Amino acid sequence: MSKINQNFLNLKENYLFIEIGKRIRGYTDKNPDKSIIRMGIGDVTQPLAPVVVEAMKKACDEMGVKETFKGYEDSGRGYLFLREAVAGYYKGFGVTIEPDEIFISDGAKSDSGNITDIFSENNIALVSDPAYPVYVDSSIMNGKNVIYADATERTGFAPIIPTNTKADIIYLCSPNNPTGAVFTKEQIQKWVDYAIFNKAVIIYDAAYEAFISDESLPRSIFCIESARKCAIEIASLSKTAGFTGTRCGYTIIPKELEFYDENGNSYNVLKIWARRQGSKFNGVPYIIQRGAEAVFTPEGLKQTRETIGYYMQNAEIMSDTFDELGIKYTGGKNSPYIWFKCNMPSWEFFDKLLTEKQIVGTPGAGFGKNGDGWFRLTAFGTRENTIEAMRRVKELLKK
Amino acid sequence: MSKINQNFLNLKENYLFIEIGKRIRGYTDKNPDKSIIRMGIGDVTQPLAPVVVEAMKKACDEMGVKETFKGYEDSGRGYLFLREAVAGYYKGFGVTIEPDEIFISDGAKSDSGNITDIFSENNIALVSDPAYPVYVDSSIMNGKNVIYADATERTGFAPIIPTNTKADIIYLCSPNNPTGAVFTKEQIQKWVDYAIFNKAVIIYDAAYEAFISDESLPRSIFCIESARKCAIEIASLSKTAGFTGTRCGYTIIPKELEFYDENGNSYNVLKIWARRQGSKFNGVPYIIQRGAEAVFTPEGLKQTRETIGYYMQNAEIMSDTFDELGIKYTGGKNSPYIWFKCNMPSWEFFDKLLTEKQIVGTPGAGFGKNGDGWFRLTAFGTRENTIEAMRRVKELLKK
Repeated sequence: MSKINQNFLNLKENYLFIEIGKRIRGYTDKNPDKSIIRMGIGDVTQPLAPVVVEAMKKACDEMGVKETFKGYEDSGRGYLFLREAVAGYYKGFGVTIEPDEIFISDGAKSDSGNITDIFSENNIALVSDPAYPVYVDSSIMNGKNVIYADATERTGFAPIIPTNTKADIIYLCSPNNPTGAVFTKEQIQKWVDYAIFNKAVIIYDAAYEAFISDESLPRSIFCIESARKCAIEIASLSKTAGFTGTRCGYTIIPKELEFYDENGNSYNVLKIWARRQGSKFNGVPYIIQRGAEAVFTPEGLKQTRETIGYYMQNAEIMSDTFDELGIKYTGGKNSPYIWFKCNMPSWEFFDKLLTEKQIVGTPGAGFGKNGDGWFRLTAFGTRENTIEAMRRVKELLKK
Repeated sequence: MSKINQNFLNLKENYLFIEIGKRIRGYTDKNPDKSIIRMGIGDVTQPLAPVVVEAMKKACDEMGVKETFKGYEDSGRGYLFLREAVAGYYKGFGVTIEPDEIFISDGAKSDSGNITDIFSENNIALVSDPAYPVYVDSSIMNGKNVIYADATERTGFAPIIPTNTKADIIYLCSPNNPTGAVFTKEQIQKWVDYAIFNKAVIIYDAAYEAFISDESLPRSIFCIESARKCAIEIASLSKTAGFTGTRCGYTIIPKELEFYDENGNSYNVLKIWARRQGSKFNGVPYIIQRGAEAVFTPEGLKQTRETIGYYMQNAEIMSDTFDELGIKYTGGKNSPYIWFKCNMPSWEFFDKLLTEKQIVGTPGAGFGKNGDGWFRLTAFGTRENTIEAMRRVKELLKK
């Protein structure tokens, strides 16, 4: 008799987005004439950079000609041209990563979810509250115990390092989804020290690093040198270059990173991940890898930074609005998210914003208990919609 | 302390391809002037069909324009246009599948590997011997017990249904990699009956279905109607349309398929897989999905069938050679693989073929104990190389 992985029965229903969808449909069915501004899901709206499109079209042509056709990639880890481009990108902000430490993936979500495969069920996973739901869900699916680090208004939504529990795997995300909070070097250093002391591994989600413009803030956990002993970094071109529908990311595992068996023997994490990927993954399309490579050329960086600049101007329009209203928020600087205090239960505010002002956002409660009373809006919309939404928000929240 | 998933320590080193690579290098280092014909790895050599290239280039252009840009796909299960195209393709050989039962993936390897995630460790996985190594490796990584069904010369390399053990998950592959054997409807029906009787789930790998030209042979397990109660089918465009480096496949889970918890309560497999994919996967690039859609248009089918015809002519040249030599083999008809009896240990024959005739194949022993004494060659090479290789094989094996 085929048996279900019972860990799946411990998952909460994904109420958040189902519930959001249901409430939107409920409203639009009754109000078909109202135009809704969507600032809920963290999806981008601006097109791919011209250099990326050109590189991919060239690669399509190569695939149509026998002499330049590409079949299986030898390693499935990503073509060297792209791994070198990623290494060069890191070099640009002062971090040295070897191309052999980089695994090209179809996105940060896949790798954040799959990385738990190589860790025993007998690990305690620490996740901040609030957090991106994938860390919790994939840990639960793999039978791990999940504990939470509170991130609250008092700490500026930086998660608090536990003093009396030892986590084995620690998920951190900066710039944070959903709170927009960004770690300082000093804050990360403390987590790195905690991880090294406990022989824990930090899974560092840097999917929003490209939004950091303040040069004093770290864009990678590997800006902290000792992090090579305790961290895996997962990043993506989804937000950096609008690849949400183009699918390309990368995971960095330092060669010296180790984990342990029950007898305390150590094993190389990079080698075990390579074995996992070798058996369960066959790489990213050649065409997409050529597009990703183009992102890291000087022209590609220029073009994608213009788009990031566009979103960050949206973020500025949004933070100016909340500043003017005197409402507390995090994010909006070095982050495409604005996370603000809505002074009522998040779902109640959701309904109010939808029905009174036809704006969809994401209730903070959907990211964990500490998110209740808070609300997330994204800067990924168009300029027109952002301006119009802020006009409506002002009407709603002006005292 | 972060702990390794100890199941990984039970994996065998992937000797097969490492060892092949090592022996080739050893030979070419000493004989740099010899030109080697590679018939080892099952990778294709012919370019993508023109309609596929055009569809992808058009999609690249769409991604560069705001009005037609595509971000996240709502479901991550694949665009409806592609799921409908796959359903239409199945219709073409008489099988009805709903688009809602289809999950678009980045390839059969990922899904074959990841599908074990949703099954409890307490399942016995049955794998034929010989078999594609991913079934065994991914089952072991997930802590499952693996048992084997012998497939030998005596049965024409059809795996023998166990009479005294109950498997919970059964991996079947037809046309088979590596043996080229193809199930008849009667053979599959027996496995389906066995699976239904034992409430087991069959994972049916149909990656090579497009090579079946004999209309009496089933191209899908769902040609057997009752299979909807017990089977998942995994397929791919890798061999159908030369997508080994373009990455697109699909998995079919009938709505009525169920599995069970420890108390015998039933759960819907499709829903649980959707939950897994929802948390750990974000879909296939829009550009690639448009390319895949083009495969299933009348012009796409015509163009890709021409390429399959080219490979099958290679297969014919190969089977003619082995017929002429009076050497026993399976495959070569309705399959791109020729699996022949080499009358000595597989690795010994590997060395002989490499050093005396500069041809690389795959030793059958690498696929399981029943593979020893057998050898796999692929029809995916160019015509010139195939003809030349067969000339050399004749020289080597003529009595």
